[in-house]
Amino acid sequence: MSVTAAQGFTAAGITAGIKESGTPDLALVVNNGPRRAAAGVFTSNRVKAAPVLWSEQVLKGGEVTAVVLNSGGANACTGPKGFQDTHATAEKVAEVLGQNAGEVAVASTGLIGVLLPMDKLLPGIEKAAAALSAHGGEKAAIAIKTTDTVHKTSVVTGDGWTVGGMAKGAGMLAPGLATMLVVLTTDADLDSATLDKALRDATRQTFDRVDSDGCMSTNDTVLLLASGASEVAPAYAEFAEAVRTVCDDLARQLIGDAEGASKDIRIEVINAATEDDAVEVGRSIARNNLLKCAIHGEDPNWGRVLSAIGTTGAAFEPDELNVAINGVWVCKNGSVGDDRDLVDMRYREVKITADLAAGSESAVIWANDLTAEYVHENSAYSS
Amino acid sequence: MSVTAAQGFTAAGITAGIKESGTPDLALVVNNGPRRAAAGVFTSNRVKAAPVLWSEQVLKGGEVTAVVLNSGGANACTGPKGFQDTHATAEKVAEVLGQNAGEVAVASTGLIGVLLPMDKLLPGIEKAAAALSAHGGEKAAIAIKTTDTVHKTSVVTGDGWTVGGMAKGAGMLAPGLATMLVVLTTDADLDSATLDKALRDATRQTFDRVDSDGCMSTNDTVLLLASGASEVAPAYAEFAEAVRTVCDDLARQLIGDAEGASKDIRIEVINAATEDDAVEVGRSIARNNLLKCAIHGEDPNWGRVLSAIGTTGAAFEPDELNVAINGVWVCKNGSVGDDRDLVDMRYREVKITADLAAGSESAVIWANDLTAEYVHENSAYSS
Repeated sequence: MSVTAAQGFTAAGITAGIKESGTPDLALVVNNGPRRAAAGVFTSNRVKAAPVLWSEQVLKGGEVTAVVLNSGGANACTGPKGFQDTHATAEKVAEVLGQNAGEVAVASTGLIGVLLPMDKLLPGIEKAAAALSAHGGEKAAIAIKTTDTVHKTSVVTGDGWTVGGMAKGAGMLAPGLATMLVVLTTDADLDSATLDKALRDATRQTFDRVDSDGCMSTNDTVLLLASGASEVAPAYAEFAEAVRTVCDDLARQLIGDAEGASKDIRIEVINAATEDDAVEVGRSIARNNLLKCAIHGEDPNWGRVLSAIGTTGAAFEPDELNVAINGVWVCKNGSVGDDRDLVDMRYREVKITADLAAGSESAVIWANDLTAEYVHENSAYSS
Repeated sequence: MSVTAAQGFTAAGITAGIKESGTPDLALVVNNGPRRAAAGVFTSNRVKAAPVLWSEQVLKGGEVTAVVLNSGGANACTGPKGFQDTHATAEKVAEVLGQNAGEVAVASTGLIGVLLPMDKLLPGIEKAAAALSAHGGEKAAIAIKTTDTVHKTSVVTGDGWTVGGMAKGAGMLAPGLATMLVVLTTDADLDSATLDKALRDATRQTFDRVDSDGCMSTNDTVLLLASGASEVAPAYAEFAEAVRTVCDDLARQLIGDAEGASKDIRIEVINAATEDDAVEVGRSIARNNLLKCAIHGEDPNWGRVLSAIGTTGAAFEPDELNVAINGVWVCKNGSVGDDRDLVDMRYREVKITADLAAGSESAVIWANDLTAEYVHENSAYSS
């Protein structure tokens, strides 16, 4: 049900012809109110795509009427013309819907450094507006795919209200904020400040903690729109938990569909002095190419975990570190632990537990293995 | 000529049986004086192998009589027993040579988390001592190979004095100090403080600026030994330049032999506000897996360069960045520049120039592409 699970939203996903493949490439999500409250988080990459620069401004107003998303081109590193194109895209949506362009968020994904074919995108907006439907969520989720093999949606239902969403992302997933394009909708009756808090709390613990390849996108955008159509104002904790659950579900789907991946790696750092330490260590493990290769080869090479931990500034003593792979403590006190042959790595999910023995904080980071397929997919992407 | 190019040194490389492959795995380098001055730099990884912990202490004394190096096992993450083994190794060398164990440096390379077979290593030291020769430099360089396909040596001759050296390293190459195992020797008549300064100046600009896979070793060791046998004390600048040249040559050989690599990538960051900024940006580009895949595919995907620059804290404005690949300025002012089809990437060396337009400092970082062969080699390494 995606972005149309909540009341008050319509959506569409159509083929505008931006992608040469002829597959769907334009999505439109419209908030029909009565509220138009919104919050957004964006990539922390300092090189930001034109739609990110635009939408950051839109979100400052706290109201979003519509989100237009395209695949087939990131509109990043495209200079003043790229920004003009984003502006024209928002204007076109506003014109077709009879709304204000200043409340139209724009998101793009695809190759960096290429201008969008506006002669196809603008007519596509008319086509998408004509296709808007209260059942259009799935089609919208399909239209934002790039190298994704499946579309990603999630829904959580509260007492009289709903949070739903869609995500796209299969590579260039790294913390530093959210991950690629995500639109969440809710019919809860909440203001933009509440949405903002719930969204930041959720992304910090979900999208910010997946790392498929250590590469941070120029286009990451996560939006949360509230229509208020349920006329229910849930308690903050309950609502925040629903948003976090949807984000967590979508983040896991992103990792599960990461480019070329054959393993999902759940890295749990325990007994850290601080949560920041736990996250830093988890990310360092998540980004270690040698370890990612070993996991691909079903090789419980725990030395690579220790060498990754050793590059961080976290509080720990090298001779107090413990590491388990799939529950077997192969490293104890910084040295050889239980027999590595006891580790069974046949399944897709691999659990790495790193015990820093320095406190009581913890964090979970999700990552993928590094495979020849990842190399193949990304060595031919733009050609 | 390797470590025996300079007068006053003997070396040997033999097969002790540490490696199951039966290839040479133990090297011994002896400084016969009259001086025994020495300097060393070691990995900045906080998880340090036993031989690193040992040799750091040895180098504090500023004198080294002999260096014993083994491949076939890193003796890292091996606990108190691993440290005892390193100590016993140094004691054995001291006994055989009739010297002090406190002046014997030890270096190991190979798999992390496995104890060394001391029943093979200790007899191997006797064998190596018996094979010591003023022409043993090549054999020593061969005995320290792990996944290296070639052994690496370099020599620079001054006016009556010489600096020579050997290196091993093919993966887990990343800045944070030196790179894997390197022994340099000279017959220049210099004290350990001078050696230390020359070595640190050299490694900062050479081994610290290669990055094959972003992974920092637990065992990196770079030693410089001076015998004084030439009875010549060269001027500092002249000597430092010779050491830098040998280090640069060895560092380039490491990149040229990196695991699975098909391209050597020379990343030059220009017009940076500070040298640190230039190095930070260069490393970020060097570690971007997506870019490394693109280079492998001979795809001048400059957007991935910009997205890597954007993750740094260096001084720059996104719309003032320029990027050239093999001399073609494919990105100008943060946007589309010259035609990417003009870029010829058929050759092994690929040059990326990143112009930050923020000052006048620069730095060069060397990296490799990411290939399916790298994945294959590192997914099966320990099994």
